[in-house]
Amino acid sequence: MKKFINTSESLLDDSLHGFGQAHGDIIDIHPHPHFVQRVAPTKPGKVALISGGGSGHEPLHTGFVGFGMLDAACPGQIFTSPTPDQMVAAAQESENGGGVLFIVKNYAGDVMNFEIAAEMLDCPCETVLINDDVSLPRTHSAGRRGVAGTTIVEKIVGAAAEQGADLTACKALGERVNRATASMGVALTSCTVPALGKPTFDMAPDEMEMGVGIHGERGRERMKLSSAADIVEDLATAIQAELQPPANQPVLLHVNGLGATPLIELYLIYNLAWQFWQKRGVRIDRCLVGNYTTSLDMAGCSLTLTLLDEELIRLWDAPVHTAALRWGC
Amino acid sequence: MKKFINTSESLLDDSLHGFGQAHGDIIDIHPHPHFVQRVAPTKPGKVALISGGGSGHEPLHTGFVGFGMLDAACPGQIFTSPTPDQMVAAAQESENGGGVLFIVKNYAGDVMNFEIAAEMLDCPCETVLINDDVSLPRTHSAGRRGVAGTTIVEKIVGAAAEQGADLTACKALGERVNRATASMGVALTSCTVPALGKPTFDMAPDEMEMGVGIHGERGRERMKLSSAADIVEDLATAIQAELQPPANQPVLLHVNGLGATPLIELYLIYNLAWQFWQKRGVRIDRCLVGNYTTSLDMAGCSLTLTLLDEELIRLWDAPVHTAALRWGC
Repeated sequence: MKKFINTSESLLDDSLHGFGQAHGDIIDIHPHPHFVQRVAPTKPGKVALISGGGSGHEPLHTGFVGFGMLDAACPGQIFTSPTPDQMVAAAQESENGGGVLFIVKNYAGDVMNFEIAAEMLDCPCETVLINDDVSLPRTHSAGRRGVAGTTIVEKIVGAAAEQGADLTACKALGERVNRATASMGVALTSCTVPALGKPTFDMAPDEMEMGVGIHGERGRERMKLSSAADIVEDLATAIQAELQPPANQPVLLHVNGLGATPLIELYLIYNLAWQFWQKRGVRIDRCLVGNYTTSLDMAGCSLTLTLLDEELIRLWDAPVHTAALRWGC
Repeated sequence: MKKFINTSESLLDDSLHGFGQAHGDIIDIHPHPHFVQRVAPTKPGKVALISGGGSGHEPLHTGFVGFGMLDAACPGQIFTSPTPDQMVAAAQESENGGGVLFIVKNYAGDVMNFEIAAEMLDCPCETVLINDDVSLPRTHSAGRRGVAGTTIVEKIVGAAAEQGADLTACKALGERVNRATASMGVALTSCTVPALGKPTFDMAPDEMEMGVGIHGERGRERMKLSSAADIVEDLATAIQAELQPPANQPVLLHVNGLGATPLIELYLIYNLAWQFWQKRGVRIDRCLVGNYTTSLDMAGCSLTLTLLDEELIRLWDAPVHTAALRWGC
């Protein structure tokens, strides 16, 4: 295993310390239980947005804490749900009279622990469940997974909360953006979980995993490695079938790297995806290209499409100041 | 070779097209000869800052074109110098009465081609040479290489040019920042140049290359893979010996990923480097953590330290709006 670590046990703590030292103007790291909280004060009555999940997907979620996005994030151990005490502590520290909205990716452990935390809180608390991964059918027993679309939901709801939307409105908005969003990913290599010390799955040098999950879960199909053009055609076709954007529909196109794929390849993917939707008359009005929802050191990428309207564009464009996304301030 | 490409010949063009479509609000892509130019108008008399070099180091340099940083960047083929006609075209399009400053990393091909371009121009033109890599001795026959410190020079000189500094002042400032900057990197894996189709160098699963160059050049020493703490101690000690910052010296600490190293590891590296200089009483007043000067899909990282003063801090903090760095606007 070739990684910059001291021990697999201390990786998360060591990394969070570094994150805290690098971004002390944006966030505080709370130890015992661990959570990351924005330092910018919030207006009384603002809904507190809290997310979290297993670590290993950085910058998701800790890199999205700050003005205009999350109030706090609860990092679990690598690919392991955070515990309810983290969420309760984060909620108690962040709640400012507007209630708490949990943004939760659809994984059994995350869902269960956020539910327990919600029951323990004595303030109004709602949850938005993210399940944008179209690689699995809607009828899959565990439901669809939450993947890179999470960034889009957190940015848009974060802007609305900052602008004074109440808890009911934030929840409805988050669910609307989630429904308007579809993603699918592909892995060229497995990631290596430090505690395991070897790749999560084996894959031949000429193979790829189409529809992979962000923890290395099996996808739709193990396929022979093909050209970037064919790969994008497959990913985009699945998303297109799900969302069926009409001609002239404004959309946000997000090309997300899974951790070990360099930017030169991600922009090549963006070019191909742009052509796919351009040909169909879809208007790519906003985009995001880079490593935002990663899977440790996995080589791979995902495409995410979100159907936009004027309100969503306005909220996407609103100022944000986090470690990983920053504009307008 | 596991990459998202169509053909190795079309990789750069395909990727630049994607870059242009994604960031049309910031840059234009000029074809034949290729260069990337900022779209924000410049004030008459502003010095035109132009950089460039082989591709494969994204976001350097194309991701640094925009308000407050570069006026244009000339991307060569992968790890190959751009040609003088690119630099001449970029300079002619960008010159606005203040002359042209070339920011050139110290590689023989880049130096030669930027020199030829400078001779072909009929406007005032100066060059800043970047050679921040301390892995090689100062007496090395080709001189020291330019690596991740380039980002720091381009940001600081970019701010000064935007604020009206003239050509002489911009050149002097660039040389001052370069002298105040030292970097060293380490590779855990080789990169794979697409046209070659296999790793540039072989390295055993328990080895690393200390002092590696950003094209996979051999460094100081092939070593057994050690803990992140030991690795950072080695990198930071070399930088410390070069710059010898006194106690209370304000510095900028830049942890740069080489392409395939995830953020969770880069923040762990930052934590260790922060501790190294904290122990020595050095004041880490500014930082930058992420993948900025990459080496295709190489797993590895580099540390860069820049000695700051009030002027450099003010210029670092000045607004910038590029694809890869953005704040204050």
